Amino acid sequence: MEKKLILVDKQDMIGLITLNRPEDMNTFNVPFARALNDALRDLDKDDEVRVVVIQAAGKHFSTGISLSEFQGKSPKELREFINLMDEFYHTLPRMKKPVIASVKGAAVANGAGLVFACDLAVAAENAKFGTTAINVGLICLGPAVPLARHVGRKKALEMILTGDILSAAEAERLGLINKIVPPDELEAKTMELAAKLAQKSPLAVQTGKAGVYAMSEIPYHQALDYMDELFASLCGTEDALEGINAFLEKRKPKWKNK
Amino acid sequence: MEKKLILVDKQDMIGLITLNRPEDMNTFNVPFARALNDALRDLDKDDEVRVVVIQAAGKHFSTGISLSEFQGKSPKELREFINLMDEFYHTLPRMKKPVIASVKGAAVANGAGLVFACDLAVAAENAKFGTTAINVGLICLGPAVPLARHVGRKKALEMILTGDILSAAEAERLGLINKIVPPDELEAKTMELAAKLAQKSPLAVQTGKAGVYAMSEIPYHQALDYMDELFASLCGTEDALEGINAFLEKRKPKWKNK
Amino acid sequence: MEKKLILVDKQDMIGLITLNRPEDMNTFNVPFARALNDALRDLDKDDEVRVVVIQAAGKHFSTGISLSEFQGKSPKELREFINLMDEFYHTLPRMKKPVIASVKGAAVANGAGLVFACDLAVAAENAKFGTTAINVGLICLGPAVPLARHVGRKKALEMILTGDILSAAEAERLGLINKIVPPDELEAKTMELAAKLAQKSPLAVQTGKAGVYAMSEIPYHQALDYMDELFASLCGTEDALEGINAFLEKRKPKWKNK
Repeated sequence: MEKKLILVDKQDMIGLITLNRPEDMNTFNVPFARALNDALRDLDKDDEVRVVVIQAAGKHFSTGISLSEFQGKSPKELREFINLMDEFYHTLPRMKKPVIASVKGAAVANGAGLVFACDLAVAAENAKFGTTAINVGLICLGPAVPLARHVGRKKALEMILTGDILSAAEAERLGLINKIVPPDELEAKTMELAAKLAQKSPLAVQTGKAGVYAMSEIPYHQALDYMDELFASLCGTEDALEGINAFLEKRKPKWKNK
Repeated sequence: MEKKLILVDKQDMIGLITLNRPEDMNTFNVPFARALNDALRDLDKDDEVRVVVIQAAGKHFSTGISLSEFQGKSPKELREFINLMDEFYHTLPRMKKPVIASVKGAAVANGAGLVFACDLAVAAENAKFGTTAINVGLICLGPAVPLARHVGRKKALEMILTGDILSAAEAERLGLINKIVPPDELEAKTMELAAKLAQKSPLAVQTGKAGVYAMSEIPYHQALDYMDELFASLCGTEDALEGINAFLEKRKPKWKNK
Repeated sequence: MEKKLILVDKQDMIGLITLNRPEDMNTFNVPFARALNDALRDLDKDDEVRVVVIQAAGKHFSTGISLSEFQGKSPKELREFINLMDEFYHTLPRMKKPVIASVKGAAVANGAGLVFACDLAVAAENAKFGTTAINVGLICLGPAVPLARHVGRKKALEMILTGDILSAAEAERLGLINKIVPPDELEAKTMELAAKLAQKSPLAVQTGKAGVYAMSEIPYHQALDYMDELFASLCGTEDALEGINAFLEKRKPKWKNK
């Protein structure tokens, strides 16, 4: 039986994706990327799942695209390969459900980009982040897109052009990750954050995620008008009324996801 | 005589707005929002006023929209209500004069949004900030619009989706407020900052405020061209020449606001 | 023989520009700005140069535009003057090669703007930054454009409207500079960073710089598609294959810049 490159599990409304090529530091190749993309799409459609976590088997999160994959390809093949490697950058913000990266060891190149493109990230104190493609004559352009939505101009250029490695503490200071934890608490703390989100109204969480991405890309006053539309829609749902009633009645709300 | 929900005062070119529903933690309802919007518009038109400060009576800045207001409204009524609650997000950046929030205690949901939408903010060490609507099945979409102009992607998503409360120190680290002060110095330090701005050339301050908002929303090179237009206009004013002459003659400038 | 306002030198693939009006704190006037613009353009076209450094003679980086230049100009002359003073804001991000500011002493008004508009910056511990035009009835609109690409809304407004001076440590915390060093190590540390970039594949560095600027100005998904185009082009170059082969063969790459 073939070994699975991506493991998928479900626990208490949390969809758990495990990058499972530890023998090769979870580098991306064609079947790995396809399996990751499928897992993200499947869990987003799964009604039992409210939050997705991406974690890694082995010591490292992911060291990016396997370099040998760039060799011996025609321009057309290369282009299709790049599109496949970058697909998760498109998928993650478009998913209805929030996705949390759980990071230990090295997250570099496309591995760093996967963390940057997730909605939230928890990292072990020993995690390291770098946009290192510059060191092999390439450049981390995919990772740069979400990176530049997190940090200022000079820091983004420094990371992309030097390929220098950031510590977890520096990444947290820059806002690239939400929280640092001791390595032996990484799984527990990630699942705690996931469980917190899973307890919230799923419609509210999904509206919030979609809203933050949408309004970051349009002008301020236009964004406000769009947010009013989204908010008015949400207010008309059963779960919004349930949330308000439960609060005013000092009881726990029961979400119906409608 | 009816109690005023919003107090308005003027001192030495500073317009002072006081949120005055301390018995209900300055939550927003229809008359409160109308009075706040009117106060902002009136002070912006008032030639004696160069800077506006928003402070709060009682222990808390504001805990957002009163939840009972969401109950029993038709979709049309709800939509009008939301537009009214969110009006200050549109008004504040469009005002000619800078507006400083002076924050103590809780500033949550629309109360946090009011701080985020002000141009500047001074906070007491005991201030707390949170986009907490997620806890009642809603989501802080209005506050998210200015929030995402202050902090990176992951931090904005974390705040909006978890509803977790930030300390004043964390908010300062993230750039959501300009300065933290001991609670008993809040009023004095806010008025000191307001007085500093009130002493500057009003035309220069207004051009600066309008310029920063305008150029943040358009592409870099287009923004530079627009800034050149604004700057050339300002350079042609009497006050700009007065400022330059006063500097070269080592004397204090006298602004005529023209 | 006339003294040169801008010195240009080349060392080991690094183009070195020295602001050379120390007797007047490197303030900008017409010939100074013209010479700076020419130097930037010439070094960008020079095939021997891979990285540009801007440093200053004397104690200060630059204190901005000489105020007497604003006096006695017709509106048309003023407009042409402003366009000339602001030209570097357009030029720097459009240059193929990365530009590093090496900052000591005061970098204020257009001098601060020059630092903000460079791709990277190293500063001595004694460096100071300020957008101080507000103090003479003007306003730092040119500097505000790159400033707002580095820091959040409230910090940008505070700097522009108050004209307050930032320490090097504060500027580093805000991401306005990449690194702080002791004053006597400024030149060595700047040249070390420049040398690091000069050793990388020049095509990769240029693609990275152009990519970061381009994709910061367009929506996320559109940016990803554009990055895929740039990345596919780069992957087809000889130097990209050389970089990958060298890495897989555990040897140093030899760049041909094609």
